[in-house]
Amino acid sequence: MNLSIQNLIGLEGVPAEDISIILDTAFSFREVLERPVKKVPTLKGKTIVNLFFENSTRTKMSFDLAEKRLSADSISFSASSSSLSKGETFKDTIKNLFAMKMDAVVMRHPTPGAAKLLSGFVDAVVINAGDGTHEHPTQAILDMMSIKEKLGELKGLRVSIIGDIKHSRVALSNIYGLKTMGAEVMLCGPPTFIPRGIESLGVKVTHNLQEALEFSDVINILRIQQERMGTGLIPSLREYRKVYGITREKLSKFQKPITIMHPGPINRGVEIDSDVADGEHSIILDQVLNGVASRMAILYLLIGGKN
Amino acid sequence: MNLSIQNLIGLEGVPAEDISIILDTAFSFREVLERPVKKVPTLKGKTIVNLFFENSTRTKMSFDLAEKRLSADSISFSASSSSLSKGETFKDTIKNLFAMKMDAVVMRHPTPGAAKLLSGFVDAVVINAGDGTHEHPTQAILDMMSIKEKLGELKGLRVSIIGDIKHSRVALSNIYGLKTMGAEVMLCGPPTFIPRGIESLGVKVTHNLQEALEFSDVINILRIQQERMGTGLIPSLREYRKVYGITREKLSKFQKPITIMHPGPINRGVEIDSDVADGEHSIILDQVLNGVASRMAILYLLIGGKN
Amino acid sequence: MNLSIQNLIGLEGVPAEDISIILDTAFSFREVLERPVKKVPTLKGKTIVNLFFENSTRTKMSFDLAEKRLSADSISFSASSSSLSKGETFKDTIKNLFAMKMDAVVMRHPTPGAAKLLSGFVDAVVINAGDGTHEHPTQAILDMMSIKEKLGELKGLRVSIIGDIKHSRVALSNIYGLKTMGAEVMLCGPPTFIPRGIESLGVKVTHNLQEALEFSDVINILRIQQERMGTGLIPSLREYRKVYGITREKLSKFQKPITIMHPGPINRGVEIDSDVADGEHSIILDQVLNGVASRMAILYLLIGGKN
Repeated sequence: MNLSIQNLIGLEGVPAEDISIILDTAFSFREVLERPVKKVPTLKGKTIVNLFFENSTRTKMSFDLAEKRLSADSISFSASSSSLSKGETFKDTIKNLFAMKMDAVVMRHPTPGAAKLLSGFVDAVVINAGDGTHEHPTQAILDMMSIKEKLGELKGLRVSIIGDIKHSRVALSNIYGLKTMGAEVMLCGPPTFIPRGIESLGVKVTHNLQEALEFSDVINILRIQQERMGTGLIPSLREYRKVYGITREKLSKFQKPITIMHPGPINRGVEIDSDVADGEHSIILDQVLNGVASRMAILYLLIGGKN
Repeated sequence: MNLSIQNLIGLEGVPAEDISIILDTAFSFREVLERPVKKVPTLKGKTIVNLFFENSTRTKMSFDLAEKRLSADSISFSASSSSLSKGETFKDTIKNLFAMKMDAVVMRHPTPGAAKLLSGFVDAVVINAGDGTHEHPTQAILDMMSIKEKLGELKGLRVSIIGDIKHSRVALSNIYGLKTMGAEVMLCGPPTFIPRGIESLGVKVTHNLQEALEFSDVINILRIQQERMGTGLIPSLREYRKVYGITREKLSKFQKPITIMHPGPINRGVEIDSDVADGEHSIILDQVLNGVASRMAILYLLIGGKN
Repeated sequence: MNLSIQNLIGLEGVPAEDISIILDTAFSFREVLERPVKKVPTLKGKTIVNLFFENSTRTKMSFDLAEKRLSADSISFSASSSSLSKGETFKDTIKNLFAMKMDAVVMRHPTPGAAKLLSGFVDAVVINAGDGTHEHPTQAILDMMSIKEKLGELKGLRVSIIGDIKHSRVALSNIYGLKTMGAEVMLCGPPTFIPRGIESLGVKVTHNLQEALEFSDVINILRIQQERMGTGLIPSLREYRKVYGITREKLSKFQKPITIMHPGPINRGVEIDSDVADGEHSIILDQVLNGVASRMAILYLLIGGKN
């Protein structure tokens, strides 16, 4: 039950055996979360730093809960409150922090590659909680866990990711993870949202939502991030909704059930309608709970395995 | 020792048996707070969310301490740091939060009825830490505990609440609680501070401080909240002090001891003078300590009772 | 193993026996920090308030970690979030806070004497985490611990403190501590940075860096605090570096090894060059780790000793 990886920087190149161990462990922590006492002493005496250089409510809270429920001590460090503003270099700030004997760091940073860079100069487990538009591996783990919980197996399943693939770390990590686990992946969105040459990762691409729905057992609907978009990528939110928004009407044309996922937060009435988000095939809130279980598994396997 | 209530939204309608159980339990936690080790493992593995949509130092800290001393895990969530700013609905934010398996939520919110609303859609114990000008039930519990500690019994006691009754959630919760426990209540303040028809709650009303002092075994002096007042409700702070401010001189006209309470923070020299606030009949600092004990009791009875 | 002091306000007047006990205890906590489980149950059930009226990343985090690793409960209280903004007096805010039964308070405050003042009206252990330009005793303890770790003994050692002595609480606490422990101390910096009459504390003064380096087994290099300086104290940072900046070139003129210390955060290329800060004689990162161990020792001896 030991992972081959020492850090979780991304899912690119992580072997299927590692992902399977993480998923199995996550399911056993999920059971802990159903008990009256949702806490285990597993990481007692370990110190975890939450290093968030970008705002994040749900990912930060999910890690925070995972850490508390593993009995770890955690410390939050944000860029604004730090010595960075006194002119100290990033590396000095980090080296000082880790001189105090940290066991692991969970980092979100706006720059792709930041987690990788960090793992090069700290003697602690590094877990990437999102590095710009690059990867968000713990989200992909929780997504795969949620699919497995609902449908039993990943191998051979057909999953579409719908929306702004280009600016999404969620999409990229899901592609790597799902492909490794034997699922088929289709990407769907307007041409401005699909990176050129992405087919080389072994995924199908379509700009036609009808085609994606026909293909899919599961659809993972990405948030339209108004804060990330420049002008001109899509004509308007109304137009986007008309063409790519997931509505009950569009889904009703298919006999098969299509499992509905969304990493949140949801824009109701834009990329997803309320009756779909709250409908019987939605596993959106399961994803949230599985996020805590997945992060418990990752922290446990990487930190616990280190000593 | 089980409460009939599942949540603590307000003291309106809460039966005397419940209040008695809470007070008895609070006194036993008060003993814990006098020990060198001020901590019990009672709520180990339970998760409590502190959801404060309004600034609050002392109530938040009191709950925070109560939670720590019961060994619960707690998570703080503030409106500004949340996904609310990304356009997510309040209900989605809350549903996501509670999908992570929370056992209880302590909420302060500027809107009357917010705690009640919340209890309608979350599967967790809801404790109201103040909903606008409506109720602040844990404050009334700690007030009753402090009176009982000082004077032995609530039944038959005469308590005046002095000041801005109209904008005070403290006043309303105290009225409900004290009446239920058999105390007599008088409200005193300028006409602009007394809601019309409040006598229907079974309380006496006077605009004459002399009359209130004559009536009272205990006076609960409300803070003049400059930040909440519109213009024109009172002529000036100096004028208010002259007529309703509690001074040693005004109290000295009575032979009997009058117990002095104030929910804090105090405006020294406005609604209360320093020699009264710090005098021998003041139980203001006891209220603060009893606040922690009361909140421990409420959390323990509501959360512990749930499993 | 009991200290003669009840609080740690400063190192002025603290007897050598107390400092020796603190250092010995710090070394044993240092061993705890090298274990996989870096935590002891020593202060379980004790409540510590971190009262920071000035920004501080590293000192606050160091205390925070020390408290967690001693299993204490800690509460953070910052001036801006407090009732102080509602017009409550400082003393009332503090009295309310301590009415909730705090065991200790760690305070940083911009005003010299603030910690002393606080110790006069609270019934809790007071630890000064920096009071303006006055003292920063826990920094001096960690500095002495780091020297002892590197060189074995303090008695007879020659230590120079280089830089802005006048505005440095680090310097003053180091002077008191080192003198008490039998070290010889030299201060070095431009005349505008050396307080007049400081020789009366039993230290040597020089404005010549060459002379200080010749004298020293250890040099403690202070940060040039741009935010604290008024205009005109030094001609320019470039000029300062030329005359007082510690470079490999200047050190290379001496046969002996000189141990390099700095309280951080470092201005690389101003008061210290990178190859010195990161060189073989630098113990700067050891200081950081020893900071946690020292604070654990101080908290343990003062709080644990109280009951």
